[in-house]
Amino acid sequence: MAVQTVASTTDSSASVDLGPAAALSCRECGHRVPLGPVFACEECFGPLEIAYDFSGYDTEELRKRIEAGPTNIWRYAPLLPVPADVATKPNINPGWTKLVKADNLARELGVTGGLYVKDDSGNPTHSFKDRVVAQALEAARAFGFTTLSCSSTGNLAGAVGAAAARAGFRSCVFIPHDLEQGKIVMAAVYGGELVGIEGNYDDVNRFCSELIGDPAGEGWGFVNVNLRPYYAEGSKTLAYEICEQLGWRLPDQLVVPIASGSQLTKIDKGLRELIELGLVEDRPYKIFGAQAKGCSPVSTAFKAGHDVVRPQKPDTIAKSLAIGNPADGPYVLDIARRTGGAVEDVTDEQIVDAIKLLARTEGIFAETAGGVTVGVTRKLIEAGVLDPAKTTVVLNTGDGLKTLDAVAGTGLTATIRPTLDSFREAGLA
Amino acid sequence: MAVQTVASTTDSSASVDLGPAAALSCRECGHRVPLGPVFACEECFGPLEIAYDFSGYDTEELRKRIEAGPTNIWRYAPLLPVPADVATKPNINPGWTKLVKADNLARELGVTGGLYVKDDSGNPTHSFKDRVVAQALEAARAFGFTTLSCSSTGNLAGAVGAAAARAGFRSCVFIPHDLEQGKIVMAAVYGGELVGIEGNYDDVNRFCSELIGDPAGEGWGFVNVNLRPYYAEGSKTLAYEICEQLGWRLPDQLVVPIASGSQLTKIDKGLRELIELGLVEDRPYKIFGAQAKGCSPVSTAFKAGHDVVRPQKPDTIAKSLAIGNPADGPYVLDIARRTGGAVEDVTDEQIVDAIKLLARTEGIFAETAGGVTVGVTRKLIEAGVLDPAKTTVVLNTGDGLKTLDAVAGTGLTATIRPTLDSFREAGLA
Repeated sequence: MAVQTVASTTDSSASVDLGPAAALSCRECGHRVPLGPVFACEECFGPLEIAYDFSGYDTEELRKRIEAGPTNIWRYAPLLPVPADVATKPNINPGWTKLVKADNLARELGVTGGLYVKDDSGNPTHSFKDRVVAQALEAARAFGFTTLSCSSTGNLAGAVGAAAARAGFRSCVFIPHDLEQGKIVMAAVYGGELVGIEGNYDDVNRFCSELIGDPAGEGWGFVNVNLRPYYAEGSKTLAYEICEQLGWRLPDQLVVPIASGSQLTKIDKGLRELIELGLVEDRPYKIFGAQAKGCSPVSTAFKAGHDVVRPQKPDTIAKSLAIGNPADGPYVLDIARRTGGAVEDVTDEQIVDAIKLLARTEGIFAETAGGVTVGVTRKLIEAGVLDPAKTTVVLNTGDGLKTLDAVAGTGLTATIRPTLDSFREAGLA
Repeated sequence: MAVQTVASTTDSSASVDLGPAAALSCRECGHRVPLGPVFACEECFGPLEIAYDFSGYDTEELRKRIEAGPTNIWRYAPLLPVPADVATKPNINPGWTKLVKADNLARELGVTGGLYVKDDSGNPTHSFKDRVVAQALEAARAFGFTTLSCSSTGNLAGAVGAAAARAGFRSCVFIPHDLEQGKIVMAAVYGGELVGIEGNYDDVNRFCSELIGDPAGEGWGFVNVNLRPYYAEGSKTLAYEICEQLGWRLPDQLVVPIASGSQLTKIDKGLRELIELGLVEDRPYKIFGAQAKGCSPVSTAFKAGHDVVRPQKPDTIAKSLAIGNPADGPYVLDIARRTGGAVEDVTDEQIVDAIKLLARTEGIFAETAGGVTVGVTRKLIEAGVLDPAKTTVVLNTGDGLKTLDAVAGTGLTATIRPTLDSFREAGLA
């Protein structure tokens, strides 16, 4: 298969301006190649990630520059693979979502050290995917791509469709042809091409890999394939925002959902960058990973003490986390162990309970992935693994409106006639 | 009926601290009463609204104070009926939503003077209702209420449920018992009481009025009834944000949806306040009202040159605007005429087209109400009523995820087998 995954040394894209991004570097062997639309190392096939040149930054100057920036992810442009004038280009400008001090939830869970929910349902298409797609879009622009594409089963399709529309890109998104009608509508409304593939999500992915290697795919940026090194960096902004919103302070504990594991590893990367740049004090933090029991390859490996992750066949309502063979699983295990964190999972029933708990206590209606993180937080506190006396940040990465089915059983408290007598009879007075 | 609508002179609530709010003043006769949970004038039964004391504000100091404030509506606390420390109290903190420069849409509509979409789908429960409910909640707190309530057919129920949950209030929301299941779930998930009333929306409202006058309703704040004067002020923040986001500048033209008409009148009030306070230059602006043809009592009256609004029976997909007898209709007519604006309506088909147009050009998925304002904007430009050479702001007050049915026809571009041949055959290459 002729998939273009590795950079040739004659790649002309070395001259692209992506701000502080200096090169691509292999996570496994450290081999460096010029910036380009590639995702795997030519030496060892390990994953490529962005290497930055942050030299020359003065800490106080950088802090002031960030604080004076726009109220979206581009305030962190000096730390991202984007040109300095990124905020002037058409994009969906996600980020700077609320960090909610969750005092009611803290009381219910017995947390005394401060509990916060980072609520990414406030993004333009209401999931954290807007962060990574906005990033991939800037890379696509830099590389001269004209079509934005992805394989998706939900949130990503909408984020790509919206970003492409706004930036004037063509979009072509591939999904399994038998997705729920609601999800198809959410992805199709942005007017890009939405192609149903006769097959399951694995078939869709396999087809996308073929297309990247084919002339038909020329000029196409697949946000989570050939643009993946850029795309993934978008998750660092969650770490930046959390620390800035805490007053340039590291939280003691973070609870992060695991799908591919990329988000968790990039949050760790973001936190370490802030320390290295002197923007936050260097002190220990713990990262906890959260999975659904019905798709828990990483927590299973964590509990068994393994370094490798054995794939699972997903069966859970938390569909946005249902990746049975998570690419970054081993890195997640490493981070959880290195920071003194853990990886835990919860059942579908616990996920639904946690969605309702968060809504009832804080007025935040989370997607199933948010039920996973809140549920795992509760479980880890009860098990004495999470320290309730420490500052804890829990991520909600999506919106309950997108997974209404999960709480479909929720309904009317009572039905009455429009009279005060009927109101009293129902015991509502 | 013993509905408490008027303030007695012995009302002790005169001592409540609601910042610059000095009294309630009758919109019709100017009669003033102390701040309290009342909404109609004891003299003439006209609507009461907040009278402020803005004396002592220095323009530059005020501007700096606002700009240093939180990125939500509380940055405007000095201009709202809330205590100065409002940002420290538990609330859902809506606002500071995106003002999107809509260059693609402008090109399609032929607007050359700058076109912007104020996108209120970014609020916590994804509609502008969070602004007014957050305001009503602070009034409820000041008056010692312990239950937050409303009648609703959708957006408002969710906003009240979420705000009450976060503030630790009991909530009890009344809806017609036969609402769509999805809307019931969205309102019920916050865990408050959700009561279905056997009857239509009018029956629900009538019942709520009875409850306010009954001992069973003691301690209850109905956000859009006995707290209405406070609630309505929340819409002023749309005007403040638009002007600040334009660089403390008035837009030339605004297109605002009309349900009760309250939002449009309060946006006008907010603009005039900014002029009086010297925060923006005093120059003319035009306000245009937008309705669905299936519920167009105000546009019908406008076109007929009437000062009064004849009620209609609503029949439109724009359910969040479907108020057949809009309380503030006459004030809307007055504002549209005084500013040189207009009131126009669009068909359901034009609403759907406009939703798709906005999504395709700007990546913004609007509720049907957003389809109404965009559709009316297009219609008014084509008719030569809106000046395309002027700066124009169009409001999107809600989220497309809440009215998916409106665009249910949107679907896959193509269905293919997972092969490159099938891809080429479909003409996608």
